[in-house]
Amino acid sequence: MTTTLDRVRAAYRRLAETDRPEVWITLRPQGEVEAEARALDARPAGGLPLRGTLLAVKGNIDVAGLPTTAGCPSYAYRPASDAPAVAALRAAGTIVLGTTNMDQFATGLVGTRSPYGAVRNAVDPLRVSGGSSSGSAVAVALGVVDLALGTDTAGSGRVPAAFNGIVGVKPTRGLVPTDGVVPACASLDCVTVFARTLPQARRALAVLASPQTPPRRPGPWRVAVAPAAQLGELDAGWKAAYEAAAERLAATGAELRTLDLTSFTEAAELLYEGAFVAERYTAVGAFVDKGGPDLDPTVARIITGARDLPAHRLFADRERLAALRVRAAAELGDADALLLPTAPGHPTLAEVAADPLGANTRLGRFTNSTNLLDMCGVAVPSGTVHGLPFGVMLLGAAHTDDRIAEVAALLDTPLRLTVVGAHLSGQPLNHQLVSLGARLAEVTTTEPSYRLYALATDPPKPGLVRVDKGGAAVEAEVWELSAAALGAFTAALPRPMTLGSVLLADGRSTPGFLCEPQALPGAEDITEYGGWRAYLDRARN
Amino acid sequence: MTTTLDRVRAAYRRLAETDRPEVWITLRPQGEVEAEARALDARPAGGLPLRGTLLAVKGNIDVAGLPTTAGCPSYAYRPASDAPAVAALRAAGTIVLGTTNMDQFATGLVGTRSPYGAVRNAVDPLRVSGGSSSGSAVAVALGVVDLALGTDTAGSGRVPAAFNGIVGVKPTRGLVPTDGVVPACASLDCVTVFARTLPQARRALAVLASPQTPPRRPGPWRVAVAPAAQLGELDAGWKAAYEAAAERLAATGAELRTLDLTSFTEAAELLYEGAFVAERYTAVGAFVDKGGPDLDPTVARIITGARDLPAHRLFADRERLAALRVRAAAELGDADALLLPTAPGHPTLAEVAADPLGANTRLGRFTNSTNLLDMCGVAVPSGTVHGLPFGVMLLGAAHTDDRIAEVAALLDTPLRLTVVGAHLSGQPLNHQLVSLGARLAEVTTTEPSYRLYALATDPPKPGLVRVDKGGAAVEAEVWELSAAALGAFTAALPRPMTLGSVLLADGRSTPGFLCEPQALPGAEDITEYGGWRAYLDRARN
Repeated sequence: MTTTLDRVRAAYRRLAETDRPEVWITLRPQGEVEAEARALDARPAGGLPLRGTLLAVKGNIDVAGLPTTAGCPSYAYRPASDAPAVAALRAAGTIVLGTTNMDQFATGLVGTRSPYGAVRNAVDPLRVSGGSSSGSAVAVALGVVDLALGTDTAGSGRVPAAFNGIVGVKPTRGLVPTDGVVPACASLDCVTVFARTLPQARRALAVLASPQTPPRRPGPWRVAVAPAAQLGELDAGWKAAYEAAAERLAATGAELRTLDLTSFTEAAELLYEGAFVAERYTAVGAFVDKGGPDLDPTVARIITGARDLPAHRLFADRERLAALRVRAAAELGDADALLLPTAPGHPTLAEVAADPLGANTRLGRFTNSTNLLDMCGVAVPSGTVHGLPFGVMLLGAAHTDDRIAEVAALLDTPLRLTVVGAHLSGQPLNHQLVSLGARLAEVTTTEPSYRLYALATDPPKPGLVRVDKGGAAVEAEVWELSAAALGAFTAALPRPMTLGSVLLADGRSTPGFLCEPQALPGAEDITEYGGWRAYLDRARN
Repeated sequence: MTTTLDRVRAAYRRLAETDRPEVWITLRPQGEVEAEARALDARPAGGLPLRGTLLAVKGNIDVAGLPTTAGCPSYAYRPASDAPAVAALRAAGTIVLGTTNMDQFATGLVGTRSPYGAVRNAVDPLRVSGGSSSGSAVAVALGVVDLALGTDTAGSGRVPAAFNGIVGVKPTRGLVPTDGVVPACASLDCVTVFARTLPQARRALAVLASPQTPPRRPGPWRVAVAPAAQLGELDAGWKAAYEAAAERLAATGAELRTLDLTSFTEAAELLYEGAFVAERYTAVGAFVDKGGPDLDPTVARIITGARDLPAHRLFADRERLAALRVRAAAELGDADALLLPTAPGHPTLAEVAADPLGANTRLGRFTNSTNLLDMCGVAVPSGTVHGLPFGVMLLGAAHTDDRIAEVAALLDTPLRLTVVGAHLSGQPLNHQLVSLGARLAEVTTTEPSYRLYALATDPPKPGLVRVDKGGAAVEAEVWELSAAALGAFTAALPRPMTLGSVLLADGRSTPGFLCEPQALPGAEDITEYGGWRAYLDRARN
């Protein structure tokens, strides 16, 4: 009964509440979008795999009825029809809320190079959003839309995903048509998808493209990682976060192997330091040469600077790239994916303002080579560092889009559940956790602010109750399990048991067992035993 | 910290507790399995994608060290090595607990044709387990093992999945090697996978095979369904359950189309009524002809009865099948999958005993044709009818294993969440549900046994508390969401909110919002308003 109209209204409420006007270049009037939602709600569901999904479109992709600006008002034109990518998503039942801000002409990885304003990060407004698909990523991260289209030439579909804690899928070059997209480097550009979860992003990609994956050598997932020394300087804590991601893959049974990152790094440097940047001049050089008050000065400098690059240098660079491609493919071997940090660090708006070129160049260290080497990539969140999103990329050979997404799915962070009674190891209901694939992560106690009761349930269970005073620490186990497993567990919970946020001895809180107040009158207070097991043992003697 | 050893011990505890000795033909001694678990725990995790997964193997598949019986003690031999399917799963880190009971020589869909005893259904012990992979399905359904191998010639890997509420994956013929498997019909046999969830089954299949899926025509999922009139007689409530599954696919945006099922039905009839059954005689006829006290009389009658089938009839049947295959493929067209009930009904043990042949034949109505038509299939649970599991199959052309699994995944039953406060439609936290893809399913009230309090939280939230007397009905909304979304929601719950089982006006219970008793002292009892919205409105005036 939640209609598309309800979802549209919730989106505009969320938009007002989050107050990030710089995210949008053209936001459609709410009334117009509501009318479209009503029309969609009146259609039968069949044939609409993304029915009611709310979509934002990067400002360099054509949406019929809205100006295509590429981040430059004086460049704007009104396209007669949707870009094929937009058309495919609309035909699947999505609704476009508007076009989003971006680094002008998709030239940048920062999200600040726009006359429409610097896009602030969704989590920390003092930091950059990442770019060039800045507004698209932030609109998704803030929960205004479900899905957004971006583009990615040098990392524009992945760096902002990493900085805002969402998923960015950069398909194999050519898989999603780039018609109706203002080119950055036409031979390298890709249309990309942002979503809050990987399954959402993959469902959208399934509508946009029909990848055909070549067979792999059977066996466990094989994931290549880079030696720490070849990653270069990373922000504080990022090296450990990268290694933790690799360890999590290994813990799922993936086989890790180290490769030599040199060919990838050298290819990345070719993108901006070589002659390839001349393709940006081919795209919009004549326009930029005319000058104008709304040109971003950094972007204009990069594009006009590419005018005089000689063609012979492009020939030489292409030869060099061909050799690097062979070396990179050999390094990858039969690995299913290469795991890298999405970016080397996350600068503040002030840091980028102080060094617009240097800060930007650093951001592309790991992403710049992907399209040159004809690889596909998926950027996924992988925990946080100092409270900010940290992200990694899985890169793979062309047309292994599905495969790298499967590997990326292994990084879904497990959730935690604190148990204090019949679900403890060896207790009668423990098999429910084990059957759900849960693993014991930690044996600990609660914060000393709880009391434990023996409830009149069958099988016997304890009730944990937080109290203002007179509380004690209670024996607890913390189990790790997938979100789907925790959901299934929540759904199967019998009265009077409840799940809430339980405080542990070290101050962290995790979801865990509590109980309804109704079960307490008459129940025996067994706090003095220190835990359910000790109480059972005592009762037995 | 949950070791494989812990999991093995939990499995043997569960095995004792469930007390279904007929599930196993050879159960390995716990000490021996524990030793293997310890050795596995001592190995590094890399390269073990199924590390610590507990496996049961159907009695007709070779496991080194255990007798292969095919359900017939006097036929047993001790294989020198694992069947390749078993070897692949072991190499991926699974541990075999033993071999499971089955319809003798994999001839049957009932699970009762075995000198080791009739296998009782996991949910209702008075009903059949389904067969021939009876013990494998029940061992998974009871939560003793995570994963089981079966085989499927006429439906043996799917019918028992449906009857026990689990997932059964029958890959494309030839994708998983059948070496080391006692043949039923060697040219049709497939090794299959049982698991409690589709992702688990797919992870196992990924270890066993490397399917290469041909491209599909882009657009929404296209699912063919059969006209009700062509399904034949189904158990009470099964037709509605089948149609509900189709409607759920449509609601996810799949495009439904009706096909003519005649060619599928006629191919199904060819399997047992034609000459193809002679291949069973080729496999074990000489052995069965010798007679023996441990031969199942029904199985022996079927196999010896196939001895005199003339070869010319096989030529004629093959010609007929070739024509049916062309017709079936044309009916399927560019549909991604055909949705069918897995079986037409679920008999009791007594019903099968009264009519061993007739009851069995009926069970194969929808599964018998799959291998003859060279299709792949995935059987998944799809709710319950009269408290018993109901299952459907997605069938697809050869080598579309991944694709039909994607379609099957759309049937994952959504979970429910009852909200009474800040998550109601239009309230400040409602966007959390909307962002998780939840949809409002129902506006109702709780059972009249609750009291509602205004808690001192920010934003303001109500606390719902069940009471022994003096309770009232409270306004509530029931939202539908995926298990993963409910898990994410549970994990993000802030104190003092909890989720428990909330009773609704019509007596059903769903997971829903409650609160910790600690939050109640001093909170205002607002039950008289009938709900949170009315209280807010009143406060506003």
